[in-house]
Amino acid sequence: MTLNPKFDAQGLIPAIVQDADTGQVLMLAWMNATSLELTRQTGETHFWSRSRQELWHKGATSGNVQHVVELALDCDGDTLLVKVHPAGPACHTGAVSCFFNQVL
Amino acid sequence: MTLNPKFDAQGLIPAIVQDADTGQVLMLAWMNATSLELTRQTGETHFWSRSRQELWHKGATSGNVQHVVELALDCDGDTLLVKVHPAGPACHTGAVSCFFNQVL
Repeated sequence: MTLNPKFDAQGLIPAIVQDADTGQVLMLAWMNATSLELTRQTGETHFWSRSRQELWHKGATSGNVQHVVELALDCDGDTLLVKVHPAGPACHTGAVSCFFNQVL
Repeated sequence: MTLNPKFDAQGLIPAIVQDADTGQVLMLAWMNATSLELTRQTGETHFWSRSRQELWHKGATSGNVQHVVELALDCDGDTLLVKVHPAGPACHTGAVSCFFNQVL
């Protein structure tokens, strides 16, 4: 099928990153068209950093790259689900997943 | 701990909904402060529909409510992960998950 993601007004689409083996949701980050293309070409996740306003190859400095196993678009085409094999923790805090603040 | 989510310029925060038992990521939707409060009070997911511009109690018409098991905020407080027991399919197409368009 044709990949036809809907980018928002900022040219971005949210990407949920999930561990392909454990099923744990690791993080949510944003992709623009370029980072999505880089992700597909290299097989490693690339995002758009909204805070730094730059392309971001996950793990480029930390070594904790994420190898893409599967990439899926949701029913209305405005969210990506990226299943990965992570080389290390997803979170900059060193946690496996960014979702460690349980609130309920 | 204190729940202190960061809402975006539109007053919204993305909420990843995951099946608490299977680990399958079901959908991504958006919450505003009111829908988050309703979710916490009722134990069933409530969102803000960006297309309809209204509060949306998931399953109110279909019966496919989502019972909240766990609610977590990510490291920088701008994304929610909601683990649920779904009463039925998450997707309006009847699919269990909205992420059925595999693109890689």
